[in-house]
Amino acid sequence: MEDQKNMKKVMVAIDQSEYSRYALEWALQNLHESIANNQLFIYTVQPISDYSYLHASAYGATPPELIRNIQENQKKVALSLLDQAKDLCNKYGITAETITEVGDPKDLICEAVEKLKVQLLVMGSSSRGALKRAFLGSVSNHCVQNVKCPVLVVKKTA
Amino acid sequence: MEDQKNMKKVMVAIDQSEYSRYALEWALQNLHESIANNQLFIYTVQPISDYSYLHASAYGATPPELIRNIQENQKKVALSLLDQAKDLCNKYGITAETITEVGDPKDLICEAVEKLKVQLLVMGSSSRGALKRAFLGSVSNHCVQNVKCPVLVVKKTA
Repeated sequence: MEDQKNMKKVMVAIDQSEYSRYALEWALQNLHESIANNQLFIYTVQPISDYSYLHASAYGATPPELIRNIQENQKKVALSLLDQAKDLCNKYGITAETITEVGDPKDLICEAVEKLKVQLLVMGSSSRGALKRAFLGSVSNHCVQNVKCPVLVVKKTA
Repeated sequence: MEDQKNMKKVMVAIDQSEYSRYALEWALQNLHESIANNQLFIYTVQPISDYSYLHASAYGATPPELIRNIQENQKKVALSLLDQAKDLCNKYGITAETITEVGDPKDLICEAVEKLKVQLLVMGSSSRGALKRAFLGSVSNHCVQNVKCPVLVVKKTA
């Protein structure tokens, strides 16, 4: 493990949920010393919208500008989310780089970890009950299973 | 999160696998500063043996001293594992407390986290292929799902 002596890249994957904000703050507070000297990426995905309800409401003819509007709005939401996260990092004296991409969070997060050669992925997760868990395959579960680097799952307990 | 400003208790759950040794070493190297000022527990479980093969081979009458021997041997293995882990921590200038209990690792690890009020659980995991993963519900998966505190899953890639 000579080549891993010092952690180099940490990625925190966030979305609009309170869980991911909690995860970011937990990492900043509790792993501060270990993160401060490394490169920190804050990553968020703009999910591909399901336009079928639009098609239905417009009788099969969704105006292209409407779709464009939605996409632009999603981008704005993502950028504002990343700005807030960056501000939070600054409060802890840590400068973060931000990244956003469009697609399926499950796949994109795993791909980004590989591409950026991230050494630690941090994600939030809700502590759902057993029943919900059985039906909802969460993004964090998928990443723990598929990402090769260490994954820190931070749960927000009620 | 005022009460969590500084992480207080970290637990690394280990077994005899190379994965858990890797996880411990990864944490010591990469989260050194964040672990050094906290209480570190190294925890290992002595699994309850399946004595059915003994019963079968002894025609239903397993000598009690044979079972005792096996249990004592498991205890020795666990204690030696914890000693090695402690030595590794010492190498990184960190003093660890060690704990071992007898039972099902899945349940005991989750219970120990609650009992000790651990703020970060670290575990190793093998990066198995999709097929094996589907059949083997691993201890780390169970803990990520059921433990309330943040869980760091460290995978050893081939």
